[in-house]
Amino acid sequence: MTHVQLLEQIKLKRSFLCVGLDVDLDKIPQHLLELKNPLFAFSKAIIDATAPYAVAYKPNIAFFESYGTEGWAALRQIMDYLNANYPDLFTIADAKRGDIGNTSGRYAKAFFENLGFDAITVAPYMGSDSVAPFLAFEDKHTILLTLTSNTGAADFQYKKVDRKPLWQHVMSEAMAWKNAERLMFVVGATRAEALTEVRQIVPDAFLLVPGVGAQGGSLEAVVRHGMTAQCGLLINSSRGIIYAATGIDYKAGIAHAAQKLQLEMEYFLSQKGIV
Amino acid sequence: MTHVQLLEQIKLKRSFLCVGLDVDLDKIPQHLLELKNPLFAFSKAIIDATAPYAVAYKPNIAFFESYGTEGWAALRQIMDYLNANYPDLFTIADAKRGDIGNTSGRYAKAFFENLGFDAITVAPYMGSDSVAPFLAFEDKHTILLTLTSNTGAADFQYKKVDRKPLWQHVMSEAMAWKNAERLMFVVGATRAEALTEVRQIVPDAFLLVPGVGAQGGSLEAVVRHGMTAQCGLLINSSRGIIYAATGIDYKAGIAHAAQKLQLEMEYFLSQKGIV
Repeated sequence: MTHVQLLEQIKLKRSFLCVGLDVDLDKIPQHLLELKNPLFAFSKAIIDATAPYAVAYKPNIAFFESYGTEGWAALRQIMDYLNANYPDLFTIADAKRGDIGNTSGRYAKAFFENLGFDAITVAPYMGSDSVAPFLAFEDKHTILLTLTSNTGAADFQYKKVDRKPLWQHVMSEAMAWKNAERLMFVVGATRAEALTEVRQIVPDAFLLVPGVGAQGGSLEAVVRHGMTAQCGLLINSSRGIIYAATGIDYKAGIAHAAQKLQLEMEYFLSQKGIV
Repeated sequence: MTHVQLLEQIKLKRSFLCVGLDVDLDKIPQHLLELKNPLFAFSKAIIDATAPYAVAYKPNIAFFESYGTEGWAALRQIMDYLNANYPDLFTIADAKRGDIGNTSGRYAKAFFENLGFDAITVAPYMGSDSVAPFLAFEDKHTILLTLTSNTGAADFQYKKVDRKPLWQHVMSEAMAWKNAERLMFVVGATRAEALTEVRQIVPDAFLLVPGVGAQGGSLEAVVRHGMTAQCGLLINSSRGIIYAATGIDYKAGIAHAAQKLQLEMEYFLSQKGIV
């Protein structure tokens, strides 16, 4: 999927919502546990209920890996379901991978080729050659960790190098890498004030913004500091949507939680003249 | 497995060799492809052939993930085989994970609890709370990426913060984290000259050292700058051992490649008075 196609979807859905699939069998509606494959059943229900309001889905790979072979098989089913039924949705493997070149190449193959994701989150610590194998894939997107939403972000990301925090160096150096037009960046909603500086470095790049909701970030602040004329934002919500309701009629509650965010987003998109 | 038990194995085997399982079906002896499960068959053969000469095994998770559900099932079989037949071997998931706390907790569960690894490699970029869930596991080890063996290591790891490279801050701050006694560190063999500085920061910690062999690092230089009175080193070799021979009699060639490294290691251990 290209940036242009993603923007088309944003305009069509009047939304820049990404739904995070952090599927935890201890938290899903407990009647689903009687099914043969509750990981897939719950994920499918989430997707069907929220697809009118979302442009992107982000399976959190850790949750699937914690269920071993069954988890990996469910992830495969989810991706097959998404790609067959919702080909216009943008899919993100939240995997935070990164290794030496030949190993990163294997991760890129696993997520882009085999599972058919449009994008993957990647950690920058090992530098350019650890990211290059992901960037080499045409029409795929590499979402580089830059300024994360957790408290530990302060430990190293804010360290000053030549009077600028490390995260700014990560972002500006990455923009000089080959195929940098395929980069997006993770910037946590809990750091909304930093989005002004982010936009000085990457005026046009798409940002994946986690941390609205459960982690305490404000949608309004993120939009104020980070939205571009082409939107440039994907706002992720995981727990705030997928566990919004857990009874027999959970689908309606989940759809409602997604719609609530979509309506806020529609307001901001229309204010900016995008829709 | 504790540090004391690991040192016992090092003395018993007269070796501090870690064999990296970067299993690539395009590179394994091609007659194995006729078997039902070549990923496991090859890995089992490698383990059986090299176990007399090695103290640790390090499956490279990217390679298994690139084979999807089958790869994950093979990884499970390999770990079950190792834990059942070679309980004294130290097992490392080379996964380079790291995410917000609740997600890192899922990865820790996947690799420590479900698959039964003794250790996992973890990336530091997201800071202390992204590593804490791994460190919380008793008798397990978290191997933090510090100074890696690839050329991209220079991009961010060498950036100067208060006149010291970032990797030194990562290492010294991590040593102040809770459960820091469960930390080990990745230091590439291609950076052997930096091991003197590493030992000023972590005089006793075990280091996992990749990059000897295919990536050009020197075992002698690593030992000279990095070995402690309790060894303190695990030297990884992947491609240099597992693809040392590819004919029908590949097991003998692979055993020979591992033994060659073990004999060098025995010499260094005896010079240091450890054996």
